[in-house]
Amino acid sequence: MKRWNGWGNIQTENPPSAHTLEFLQQVLGPGTSQQSLSFEEACAKVPDSRLTESPLWDTRRETRVRYARGQSLPDLIATRTGLELHFPDGVAFPQSTEEVETLVQEALQNGWTLIPYGGGTSVAGHINPPMQEKPVLTVSLERMNRLLSVDTESHLARFQAGVRGVDLEAQLRAHGFTLGHFPQSFEYSTLGGWIVTRSSGQQSLRYGRIEQLFAGGLAVTPQGRWELPPLPASAAGMDLRQLLLGSEGRLGILTEATVRITPLPEQEVFHAAFLPDWQQAMQCVRELVQKRIPLSMLRLSTPRETEANLIMAGKPRAVQALKKLLSVKGIGDFRCMLLYGMTGTKPEVRHLKGQVQRVLQKHGGMDTGTLLGKGWQHNRFRAPYLRNHLWEHGHAIDTLETCTTWERLEDTRLGIEEALQNALRDENEKVFAFTHLSHLYPSGSSLYTTYAFRIDPDPEVTLQRWKKLKSAASRAIVQHGATISHQHGVGRDHAPYLPPEKGNIGMKLMHTVVDHLDPQRIFPEGVLLPEEV
Amino acid sequence: MKRWNGWGNIQTENPPSAHTLEFLQQVLGPGTSQQSLSFEEACAKVPDSRLTESPLWDTRRETRVRYARGQSLPDLIATRTGLELHFPDGVAFPQSTEEVETLVQEALQNGWTLIPYGGGTSVAGHINPPMQEKPVLTVSLERMNRLLSVDTESHLARFQAGVRGVDLEAQLRAHGFTLGHFPQSFEYSTLGGWIVTRSSGQQSLRYGRIEQLFAGGLAVTPQGRWELPPLPASAAGMDLRQLLLGSEGRLGILTEATVRITPLPEQEVFHAAFLPDWQQAMQCVRELVQKRIPLSMLRLSTPRETEANLIMAGKPRAVQALKKLLSVKGIGDFRCMLLYGMTGTKPEVRHLKGQVQRVLQKHGGMDTGTLLGKGWQHNRFRAPYLRNHLWEHGHAIDTLETCTTWERLEDTRLGIEEALQNALRDENEKVFAFTHLSHLYPSGSSLYTTYAFRIDPDPEVTLQRWKKLKSAASRAIVQHGATISHQHGVGRDHAPYLPPEKGNIGMKLMHTVVDHLDPQRIFPEGVLLPEEV
Repeated sequence: MKRWNGWGNIQTENPPSAHTLEFLQQVLGPGTSQQSLSFEEACAKVPDSRLTESPLWDTRRETRVRYARGQSLPDLIATRTGLELHFPDGVAFPQSTEEVETLVQEALQNGWTLIPYGGGTSVAGHINPPMQEKPVLTVSLERMNRLLSVDTESHLARFQAGVRGVDLEAQLRAHGFTLGHFPQSFEYSTLGGWIVTRSSGQQSLRYGRIEQLFAGGLAVTPQGRWELPPLPASAAGMDLRQLLLGSEGRLGILTEATVRITPLPEQEVFHAAFLPDWQQAMQCVRELVQKRIPLSMLRLSTPRETEANLIMAGKPRAVQALKKLLSVKGIGDFRCMLLYGMTGTKPEVRHLKGQVQRVLQKHGGMDTGTLLGKGWQHNRFRAPYLRNHLWEHGHAIDTLETCTTWERLEDTRLGIEEALQNALRDENEKVFAFTHLSHLYPSGSSLYTTYAFRIDPDPEVTLQRWKKLKSAASRAIVQHGATISHQHGVGRDHAPYLPPEKGNIGMKLMHTVVDHLDPQRIFPEGVLLPEEV
Repeated sequence: MKRWNGWGNIQTENPPSAHTLEFLQQVLGPGTSQQSLSFEEACAKVPDSRLTESPLWDTRRETRVRYARGQSLPDLIATRTGLELHFPDGVAFPQSTEEVETLVQEALQNGWTLIPYGGGTSVAGHINPPMQEKPVLTVSLERMNRLLSVDTESHLARFQAGVRGVDLEAQLRAHGFTLGHFPQSFEYSTLGGWIVTRSSGQQSLRYGRIEQLFAGGLAVTPQGRWELPPLPASAAGMDLRQLLLGSEGRLGILTEATVRITPLPEQEVFHAAFLPDWQQAMQCVRELVQKRIPLSMLRLSTPRETEANLIMAGKPRAVQALKKLLSVKGIGDFRCMLLYGMTGTKPEVRHLKGQVQRVLQKHGGMDTGTLLGKGWQHNRFRAPYLRNHLWEHGHAIDTLETCTTWERLEDTRLGIEEALQNALRDENEKVFAFTHLSHLYPSGSSLYTTYAFRIDPDPEVTLQRWKKLKSAASRAIVQHGATISHQHGVGRDHAPYLPPEKGNIGMKLMHTVVDHLDPQRIFPEGVLLPEEV
């Protein structure tokens, strides 16, 4: 069963090693262990529903607690402490496009707000019920999880949009195919959620972002059904899929999607290599991607993230041996870890290895084989579990991400890290921040920054700390001309920072499109577009 | 100097061989040689301009004749016979974004129509002045052809949008880069034109369509300047570039564009191979593209196109020898020619050759080396010149194109060819049609169909023949659920067939966006969106 107040399945734990806890205490100071609100206490906070009873939705308190919040840090604060914890008036579980149409009609007739809900994994506030006079009905698509058809000739598959990553891959695997979209939220996030928030998977280097994988689909809008044909390419005017992609539930509810699939690969391996310093390391990955070497993943950690990862691995003797080995090759304290993936036929993987080796050597790098890569593979979807435990030890951990051109990348990274490190100076609280590049393009890269700080016994103080950190980092992103999100979407948390990126004309265009399809505003205001004051 | 009544430079000729003429007479019947309207006769048809005199635009008759029409077959009929030949009231040649803004303001204040004009190579009626009460000012961007900046670290270049393909590549070459966008219109078509019509180049397999190459830019809209930042990727809401891409001048005038560039390749070769029949040939190219073998071009001709090309090559003895060689390998009368390009470092090209050979062998194919590939390379931008000459011999030649999934591809091709072949049955006129695949995707392919028919001494009859052919083929495309254009855009000619593809919601969305940015309709109605009746 899914946790109601933190990441993941209640049966899965990923506790931090003693080394991790020690390390965090060292860099942040000791944490205060936290009590958490119980499920019963949360249920007791749920007010009466403003919806009439209906077999189409569930108004039980237990259900409304489970669909109250996503997975952002403020969401964790809310579910762990009860601070600013609001609830939908009910949750619907439609099983078909027709049932979604019925819900949209109900919302139009009764003046309700509908919150489209995929896997509940948003880290930007997309699915949080607003405090408002209008009743709020959350529409979970979890029962719409079927594979509708597979075209093995054209490598296309049509799914109901509520299918979760794991179930989507399992259904495709039975036909010998994969979508290849593996965001960290893969266990819970859904195809529809990926599409409307422009998600990017860990192996986007091979398979593309969801924009490249989404061929067409069907959405229910307040103006009727919107069908987008799954053409391979077209010059027939504007590409309207690109309005649905990134629409974040403001235009309608996506119920079906056709995606581009790939035969399962013969082989897939992940290697770890080390580079002597950050400048060399960035040049190395830039060369790999600009040379179009068809790797399936690249993930490069700064020296600080590399060191943190090695400490948190909790195997000090093995790490010591590794460091010694690296130092023989002239790779010392500024070492950067590069994880890279190779996917394809066996001869292709062999050929790729040779290509990577040549570039690594040129930049003074050293390949250490598949051991650390296997470790990453094993943990690739487990990192979010760590946060549940760290909370209990008094440490908050959060991530943020952006993307910019190579030319601006280093200034942007430094700007973000510095903004975070200084954001709690007034309280004399320390912040520990480190970064990796995980989605690389010939013209630039994403930046993914993790930051940790101490939880205060007063949840209001903790939330204020997060707000200071988030706004300092977001302002730094905007200042450097980077995007406010590379993969998490806009939601409520990033909406205030969207106007500088889209410009006046761009913002008006998005408002116009929303106005046209949802003039009555049955979808939640404040998501994607900042609330009009 | 550019021809005013046909394709290309007046100094370049590409006359048909005697074999070509003989072949066309054989399949269509003898043509009647045509007289053409002289430039002076055309100028005499130009009415007085309804614009005031200004240094900002040119109202001379000579200039207005030169900017009257694009390169569609009806455009050729118009400029060769004077039928339905209308003219803009003037032509402006702005040199900066500010000058474009001035023109937009003039149009808003005076109620004029502005026709954004790139290279004048539209084959779908984009730039043709409508017959209307409002004065029409054509805005040619040809003087906005400068490279503004190159970021060699991020592989980005910013150009003024009026730069022609040849000039763009020459400017990039000086920096060691290429854009890699080579549509057949490359000599004249412009970066801005490519973007707003969603153009695709002959080597899109390597470099991507213009959608993938266009990173950001600046457009002047009636609501003000619209700047789109050149981010490598973003999840920050809708991708608004995708509204400008394919906007066909209905939203504003693109004045600057940032594009993703690639270092010049070390090696580039084009090979020709032959496959025993169409089914095997389609399976072969589908396998090549679905295996992600990174070729830079694939172009597969049906047996009928293969035969026509071999005849039109005008070297019967060499062709005879080739056929004999192929028949030894079991490749006979149903042979299909496959041209493929390999681009990269020398080791990469060598590696690619091996990969292609294995797939070719599996499908009974035979590689014939680079000879025919070199011939294609030499003529890759010259084919349109042929049409000028064939017109004079009484034969009209036109092309059309679409794209669909592999599953639907063969039915769609047969539907289009059959529709064309039957379209002039009522007049007892023959039509010769043949097809190739030239832009291939894992999920499907473009279809590019060439068709020839006889010109009638009465231009009105010729135009009616074209209309019958065009509408029969367009109806077939729509019936099969394919796109109304893969690379030529919508313009005026395809606009009536857009609604089935975009659907009711999609059409309304496009209208909404146009209404918002151009409420006064200073950009030409009837382009992209069918005229509202």
